[in-house]
Amino acid sequence: MSETQMPTARTRVVREADRAVYDREAVYRILDEGFLCHVGFAVDGQPFVIPTSYGRKDANLYIHGSAASRMLRQMKEGVAVCITVTLLDGLVLARSVFNHSMNYRSVVVLGKATLVDDPEEKLEALRILSEHILPGRWDDARQPNERELKATSVLRVPIEEFSAKVRIGPPIDDAEDMTFPTWAGVVPLEMKVGDPVDDPKLDPPREVPTYARNYARDHARK
Amino acid sequence: MSETQMPTARTRVVREADRAVYDREAVYRILDEGFLCHVGFAVDGQPFVIPTSYGRKDANLYIHGSAASRMLRQMKEGVAVCITVTLLDGLVLARSVFNHSMNYRSVVVLGKATLVDDPEEKLEALRILSEHILPGRWDDARQPNERELKATSVLRVPIEEFSAKVRIGPPIDDAEDMTFPTWAGVVPLEMKVGDPVDDPKLDPPREVPTYARNYARDHARK
Repeated sequence: MSETQMPTARTRVVREADRAVYDREAVYRILDEGFLCHVGFAVDGQPFVIPTSYGRKDANLYIHGSAASRMLRQMKEGVAVCITVTLLDGLVLARSVFNHSMNYRSVVVLGKATLVDDPEEKLEALRILSEHILPGRWDDARQPNERELKATSVLRVPIEEFSAKVRIGPPIDDAEDMTFPTWAGVVPLEMKVGDPVDDPKLDPPREVPTYARNYARDHARK
Repeated sequence: MSETQMPTARTRVVREADRAVYDREAVYRILDEGFLCHVGFAVDGQPFVIPTSYGRKDANLYIHGSAASRMLRQMKEGVAVCITVTLLDGLVLARSVFNHSMNYRSVVVLGKATLVDDPEEKLEALRILSEHILPGRWDDARQPNERELKATSVLRVPIEEFSAKVRIGPPIDDAEDMTFPTWAGVVPLEMKVGDPVDDPKLDPPREVPTYARNYARDHARK
């Protein structure tokens, strides 16, 4: 499936279509800033939505099987999933309750999750996951051994059918509300990174690595 | 369904079962700190996961139809949904890649979403949604008129079948990794609230209300 076919009937944004984004590079920027997704899958008609981390390499998303055991149990040829990533940027306070909103950037990817069997791709997928969440950590940690690799399931979801939705900027009120006597504007929200906390069992003491001390998710914007 | 029946087969936490929480009050505390959920539903076997805001009153969650138009199109008697709320508290850096984790608190609610038809309950649900996200705003904004109420769909999801999963604390490494020469610990993450930004069209100027200036989501912990 090529980008020129986006959106499909299933990924076309129905509500507030002016917020829709179908550009692959714009979608990648959102996926690269986030690292927590919500994976949806259905078992006997009942949907489940599980939070988990993810990594991206080119046009593939990788997720841990660890968060997907319920899904893996029914997996044979691949499971239809929806992977959603949401970055929340602010509360939008309009003059009317009706026009209140949020500023956000979200991506929806529909596809089939399949197990990564090849040991080399599996290890590489784990490296991608690790580097996606915390660049620099992989080389600094004790890397997976054979037993751990066997105990870990990795799923690959191709980024083929996707859409994004983005809202930015101030509130948009109806003309007749502009004189309503209340404050209007945006309360910005973002992810705050605190000072790293040593493991109490850290012995001998070690300096916090730069990648942990200066952790930020806006590397995609730099 | 009473709490004593929790978990059901569908909400029993499969992976890392020691992180499971089935206590209703603990689940409410997580639901009350968050305000963004991911709603999952299936259409023709394809799951969709949509981010949206929510409110809670007693044992009911309310969400906007605005985020659920794809879902509403197929709704008659109620739609099976999964509502997941995730609060991310930190990255957990273990000595081994395998034991890396995240600190988080998440809730999964399985249930049937049904349309709120009664105009009184609908208005009250919108007030609950508004007050859940930003306590104090409802009374300060121009409240919904009849046209807006008609244009808004509200869904009710009873909190009957649910589970939570919580991870807190430092990394847990295997004994043989404790001497591995790397830093280990937690990088705390939380939601940061920025200084409110006036709508450029605010005229005359108005002071930012206290509920927007001192916005915080940890009211549930206070």
